[in-house]
Amino acid sequence: MKDEPFEVWPIGRVESPLLDRKAAPPQGDEGAPSAVIRLRTDVYEGARDIAVGDELLVLTWLHLADRETLAVHPRSDDSRPLTGVFSTRSPNRPNPIGLHRVRVLAVAPDRIEVDRLEAINGTPVLDLKPVLGAQTER
Amino acid sequence: MKDEPFEVWPIGRVESPLLDRKAAPPQGDEGAPSAVIRLRTDVYEGARDIAVGDELLVLTWLHLADRETLAVHPRSDDSRPLTGVFSTRSPNRPNPIGLHRVRVLAVAPDRIEVDRLEAINGTPVLDLKPVLGAQTER
Repeated sequence: MKDEPFEVWPIGRVESPLLDRKAAPPQGDEGAPSAVIRLRTDVYEGARDIAVGDELLVLTWLHLADRETLAVHPRSDDSRPLTGVFSTRSPNRPNPIGLHRVRVLAVAPDRIEVDRLEAINGTPVLDLKPVLGAQTER
Repeated sequence: MKDEPFEVWPIGRVESPLLDRKAAPPQGDEGAPSAVIRLRTDVYEGARDIAVGDELLVLTWLHLADRETLAVHPRSDDSRPLTGVFSTRSPNRPNPIGLHRVRVLAVAPDRIEVDRLEAINGTPVLDLKPVLGAQTER
């Protein structure tokens, strides 16, 4: 897959007590701890309207993923049949972008504390988006 | 934002009757047409378990976006106050990754037809993910 790549840059990093992939639950609501998103100075303005209680989608770059993988046993359970990665939330996929729904617990210009984030410490953050209403949620 | 960029590659492209940004509604449920995701040959295996009726999150690269923008008037409505982009779904943001919830209408090895996709013709597709249950939706 060599044609026309695009470059993404971290807008920040995750600060989390989760230090390796084995410690991270598959999904945030399976026991993930709260975490801090430490933003880069040059994007503070983009986050100026984020408030305590907001629900956000955090897009991350799952930097330890294997980008060559196209099929996996879901949830690393070998008893489950091999499944195409686009039908799973496996971090291993061609573009390892993580998608995490969280709630904001605290906010300051350089940091956003959120609940239940299953990304490990140091994970790059690519984007933050508001959760839309139930009918329009994207 | 120059440190440590990551490269993403299109896994496919959107084929849509929407030919420019002005024609595209802000969200898929605001009148967006059905569209085809044309996949690259080398990722077919990743999509092999996608079936008619599946709900998918389509991650796109909004290639016409302005990446320097950090605050916008939501929905391009100048009467709305300037808002940090991370509190909006504006395509203009540092990493212009679009997130679209769709339902699969038809599927073949090289193409997935989906409903209500507000991305214009030619938009690069970065990833496909299953929608999880209401409690765990990411």
